Amino acid sequence: MYKADYLQKFVQTIFEKIGCPPKEALLASEVLISADLRGIDSHGIARLAGYVRLYDNGRLNPSPQVKVVHETPSTATVDGDRGLGLVVAPKAMQIAMDKADKVGSGWVSVRNSNHFGIAGYHAMLALDRDMIGWTMTNAAPLVTPTFSLDKMLGTNPLAVAVPTRNEPPFVADFASTAVAYGKFEILQRKGLPAPLGWAQDAEGKPTDDSNAVKSGGGLLPLGSDREHGSHKGYGLGAIVDIFSGVLSGANYGPWVPPFATAGFMAAQAGVGLGTGHFLGAMRVDGFRPADEFKNNMDRWIGAFRNARAIEGHQVLIPGDPERESEAKRRQEGIPLLPPVVESLVELSKRFSVNFELVN
Amino acid sequence: MYKADYLQKFVQTIFEKIGCPPKEALLASEVLISADLRGIDSHGIARLAGYVRLYDNGRLNPSPQVKVVHETPSTATVDGDRGLGLVVAPKAMQIAMDKADKVGSGWVSVRNSNHFGIAGYHAMLALDRDMIGWTMTNAAPLVTPTFSLDKMLGTNPLAVAVPTRNEPPFVADFASTAVAYGKFEILQRKGLPAPLGWAQDAEGKPTDDSNAVKSGGGLLPLGSDREHGSHKGYGLGAIVDIFSGVLSGANYGPWVPPFATAGFMAAQAGVGLGTGHFLGAMRVDGFRPADEFKNNMDRWIGAFRNARAIEGHQVLIPGDPERESEAKRRQEGIPLLPPVVESLVELSKRFSVNFELVN
Repeated sequence: MYKADYLQKFVQTIFEKIGCPPKEALLASEVLISADLRGIDSHGIARLAGYVRLYDNGRLNPSPQVKVVHETPSTATVDGDRGLGLVVAPKAMQIAMDKADKVGSGWVSVRNSNHFGIAGYHAMLALDRDMIGWTMTNAAPLVTPTFSLDKMLGTNPLAVAVPTRNEPPFVADFASTAVAYGKFEILQRKGLPAPLGWAQDAEGKPTDDSNAVKSGGGLLPLGSDREHGSHKGYGLGAIVDIFSGVLSGANYGPWVPPFATAGFMAAQAGVGLGTGHFLGAMRVDGFRPADEFKNNMDRWIGAFRNARAIEGHQVLIPGDPERESEAKRRQEGIPLLPPVVESLVELSKRFSVNFELVN
Repeated sequence: MYKADYLQKFVQTIFEKIGCPPKEALLASEVLISADLRGIDSHGIARLAGYVRLYDNGRLNPSPQVKVVHETPSTATVDGDRGLGLVVAPKAMQIAMDKADKVGSGWVSVRNSNHFGIAGYHAMLALDRDMIGWTMTNAAPLVTPTFSLDKMLGTNPLAVAVPTRNEPPFVADFASTAVAYGKFEILQRKGLPAPLGWAQDAEGKPTDDSNAVKSGGGLLPLGSDREHGSHKGYGLGAIVDIFSGVLSGANYGPWVPPFATAGFMAAQAGVGLGTGHFLGAMRVDGFRPADEFKNNMDRWIGAFRNARAIEGHQVLIPGDPERESEAKRRQEGIPLLPPVVESLVELSKRFSVNFELVN
């Protein structure tokens, strides 16, 4: 197990080594490690080598000039200047929250960015200010819309964070697909098949092949098939893509450039700039007094937590599993898989930074 | 087949008979018939008798004073004064769009309303003004969250309408459940079972009983089961509930009052006022010039329409099926099921309004 602080400092140092200003390297490292803490291992330090590869390929500007290129009192488009999404997104969220302070809500569409880590991190920035935070991002195409053989959408996640009084905050953070691609990678490593309803094969048929997405198939939208509402998951992924990509002037649909890990495809000629995000903040007291709202959120959460559960299970509130993981991992440390450790050792050699192996 | 105009005038007259001002009766009838035209029969004239029952039960104020009770430049809470959602929601959308005109976006949470028809209608109001329209509503609890035996959420739909240049607009309008409850009613009438993944039984087990929701079971969130992402459908339904109910001061979760058709449960002591909605509008030129945006939306739609399809199928754009239905039904008329016709004949007798039967 690795202490979160140790990993965070290592990440910070690597980002500094590729040229990030110290404050931005710190911010980026905190965003990245928050994924490991919250148990979303696929979006954490496992991707550090990928960000460095983006830099190596000239797709990442380590010291971007993030700027507003278009705005109204409650909206803005931000150009991320090919910066780390880990830095661009919190800056865009800051702009959204400052607008919300002034006019009740703020909505920022971002172009020319890269992978921003977990959507939930940025949405949760709103909580301290008694605002509802809202985050979306598009991503490279892995998903076949209902009845499509072509991969047209990314896993396009959505996160919404809602403040509460005494209860922990409500934090929904989920991809618009049946499962995240990371679940297939786990099965691939173990040589196991996947449940039906996660992917289709190259002919669009249901498959349990955990390598299907790599061999001409595609990830299925949330809902899995038409009979169970896959057109709704497709619609949700499409909304995320349009808000993140079309509204901002980033790439969208099949043109979103890949993150540098998977190697599914090379970046092709685009229809916009980089990857797109969409971030928003609404002051709850733009609708009703904040105390009233937060008391009612506590009551909402209490009702759902006390719902009768199916035997052997528990009714969870969105955000519960991630919060429990964070409490545990802050205490006990973060487990890393051997290939992740290997990638960190390689980075430590390349940049002459110490990385201590832990058993 | 019944001509849309004929049905619309009949609905308008019935709403006038229960005391709606003529202009509001006209608006309400247009919203209701838009559901029949767009092929969403469960939300159209089939519900007219239900709205009249709401009036009979004292839950509907036919001449409401809809008013803003709290606001900032980009947000507002509207009290619907127990009016028809069919009238309250378009008024709230108007407020959202006027705010968007001034500050880029407008977001309105609504309390003390009733069923508002199809979400898509209200979102589409934004299209003519080159705005993205956004609509949500909560509804009476029929849905069991992941691992819950209790029904805690409604089918809580979400609609997003996006303007385009030459292509028809993008209009996603869907419940946050695997299927709408109307699908069960069709199967019940035919005595047929339901596909697994639509409902659970009273013990939380998968069932093909199309009467399960009436006998202690529940509708399943989009995703159907945990393995296929039902916690995401639950999260989406929860977001809709919080934005519509908790933000506005309406009822939420298990406390949302039932519509007057199904008779699943009586309205219980609430935690707020009536049913809640959430409506929003964003000017696309709050982010980039409208022409640029709309050209890119055409390109987005073209790419998805031209994706290679699974044999025997077609890749659809959200809004395609409803638009095709509307074109056809405007031409050929609207088919009504015998029980719906019966309910209209009853209303015609009660209010001494002519209703001509068509073969």
